[in-house]
Amino acid sequence: MSAGVSPEQAAREEELVERVVRSFDDCADPRLQQLMVSLTRHLHAFVRDVRLTEAEWGAAVDFLTRAGHITDDRRQEFILLSDVFGVSMQTIAVNNVAYADATEATVWGPFFVDGSPEIELGGDMSFGAVGQPCWVEGTVSDTEGNPVAGALVEVWEADDEGLYDVQYDDDRTSARAHFRTADDGSYRFWAITPTPYPIPHDGPVGQMLAAVGRSPYRASHLHFLIREPGFRELVTHIFVAGDELLDHDSVFGVKDSLVKEFLEQPAGTPTPDGRLVEGSWTRTRFDIVLAPEGA
Amino acid sequence: MSAGVSPEQAAREEELVERVVRSFDDCADPRLQQLMVSLTRHLHAFVRDVRLTEAEWGAAVDFLTRAGHITDDRRQEFILLSDVFGVSMQTIAVNNVAYADATEATVWGPFFVDGSPEIELGGDMSFGAVGQPCWVEGTVSDTEGNPVAGALVEVWEADDEGLYDVQYDDDRTSARAHFRTADDGSYRFWAITPTPYPIPHDGPVGQMLAAVGRSPYRASHLHFLIREPGFRELVTHIFVAGDELLDHDSVFGVKDSLVKEFLEQPAGTPTPDGRLVEGSWTRTRFDIVLAPEGA
Repeated sequence: MSAGVSPEQAAREEELVERVVRSFDDCADPRLQQLMVSLTRHLHAFVRDVRLTEAEWGAAVDFLTRAGHITDDRRQEFILLSDVFGVSMQTIAVNNVAYADATEATVWGPFFVDGSPEIELGGDMSFGAVGQPCWVEGTVSDTEGNPVAGALVEVWEADDEGLYDVQYDDDRTSARAHFRTADDGSYRFWAITPTPYPIPHDGPVGQMLAAVGRSPYRASHLHFLIREPGFRELVTHIFVAGDELLDHDSVFGVKDSLVKEFLEQPAGTPTPDGRLVEGSWTRTRFDIVLAPEGA
Repeated sequence: MSAGVSPEQAAREEELVERVVRSFDDCADPRLQQLMVSLTRHLHAFVRDVRLTEAEWGAAVDFLTRAGHITDDRRQEFILLSDVFGVSMQTIAVNNVAYADATEATVWGPFFVDGSPEIELGGDMSFGAVGQPCWVEGTVSDTEGNPVAGALVEVWEADDEGLYDVQYDDDRTSARAHFRTADDGSYRFWAITPTPYPIPHDGPVGQMLAAVGRSPYRASHLHFLIREPGFRELVTHIFVAGDELLDHDSVFGVKDSLVKEFLEQPAGTPTPDGRLVEGSWTRTRFDIVLAPEGA
C-alpha cells in the first residue's frame, strides 16, 4: 500500500488518520464510535492506496451529489450504489450467517414497499401486472422440519416490462401482495413468471456501470420476505434455472440454493386450482426453512 | 478482523468480495478499474470488520439520502462529510507531498466560488463584510527564494457572523477577491481578522457530529489559492496563533506551519498604507513558497 511513498510522507498520512480517529474519543455510544473509527480507517486507506487525485475526489463528490438529487420516494440511487458494489449483499451475508439448512437470504432491493394488499392462499398477487402466469407453492418450516403456521409472507416482483409498480407514474399497486401460511406451513399463490430486467440505469449508478463495462441487468427473480416471531426474518428471492444472467447478476444476489426450476406448462395444461389460464403458464416450488431468532 | 467468524463464513464473505472484484474485469480504463477494485475491497472490509447490521446499513442509506437532498448550488453536504472524516485533508496530503520548504496545503472547503472581484494590491477584499480590519502582507517565491511575479492569488473568508457571502440569501459578493503579486513577488491587502465559525451544522453532517460528541467549529482562518504556470497550485489557509480551536478544527485543516501571529493594533495606530481605520485592527504576514509543477 502507498507504494513509492517516503517514510516521512507515510508518517504524515498516518498521523492524520490517528488525529481523525482520536476526534471520536468523546463519543458516548461505543458502537457508533467503533463504526466511525473503522470507517475512517478504511476511507483513508482507500485514498492512500490509490493515491486519489483531487480531480477524482471531485468526481466522487459530484457523483454522490447527482445520486442524491435523483433519489426520491420512488427512486433510491444509494441502495442501487450499495447493491452494485456488492455491499448490500455483504451486509446480508454478515447478518445471515448460515444456520443448519435454513434458506439463504439475498438483497432487499429498492422496490419493497409497506402496505401491500393481502391475498388468500391460492390468490393472485399480480393485480393486473402483465406477464405469463406462474403457480408458486411450497412450505415454511423450521430447521427441524416442523411447519410454521401463520407466517407472514410478502412477495413482490417486476412485470413483463421489467418494471415494478412503483416505477410507473400512476400510483398502481401490482405484482406485490402478502399472505399467511396455512396450518401445515404450506402456501400457494399465482404470480407471473420472472423475467430479466435492468436496475434503473438512467442515473449516476447506470453511468458508472457503463463506464466500467458492466451490465445493469438482474437475473430473473421473485422476491420473498418471511416474518414470524421466534424466527430470523428472511429476505430472499428465487431465481429461474437456466437464466443466462445467473452468473452476471448486477447486484450479486444469486445463490445456487435459490435457483429453482420454473416448469413450462403448455397452453391447456390443467392448473392446480382449476383456474382457467389462456396460453402457457409455469409452476415452481420453494420450500422455505427459517433459522431461529438470534441464530 | 471479523473476529468470531467461522472459517466457512469468512470464506463465503471473501468469495463475494472476489466476485465483485471480478465484475470490473472488463473495465477498459485501468485507473478506473483500480479505483473500483480498491473501493470494493475497503467497503467490504468495513462491513465485515464492524459486522454492519442491516439497521445500520439502512441508517447509512438514509444519511446519504438526506445529505443529497440538502445539497444544492450553495450547500455541499458531501464535501462537509469528506471534510469531517479528514478524507479531504488526506486527499490534499496525498497530492501535495512535502517539497523542500514549499508552503503546506490544506482543505478547499465548500465556499470557494469562481469569479471573485479583482482588487489592486493594497485593496480591500472585504467588500462590506463585517469584521475587524486586518492588514495582510507577504511574498510569493519559489523554493530557491526567487520572487514569483504576477501570480494569481485568490483569498476568501467568513465574516464576523461566521458566514461566507454565499451563505446569505441576497446574492452578495463579499470577503472574497483576487489579485496578482507585484514584480518583486510581494502582495498586500486589507481583509478582516478571521474568527471561528461552525461548518454548516443544521444538516446530516451536523447531526452526526453531535451524535459523536464533536464540535462543528473550525479554527479561525483565511483561505488562499495561488496559481502560476510552472508551479504546483497551492490551496491553503492561514490560522490565528492562540486560537483555542487550533487543536480541534472540525475538518483537520490545521498545520503548525500555517499558524500565524495576527498582531493586535490599538485604535489610532497608523496603518501601513495611511488608510484611516476606526477602532483597532490587526496585521499579519504570510510568506508563500511554491513547489514546482509536478513536484
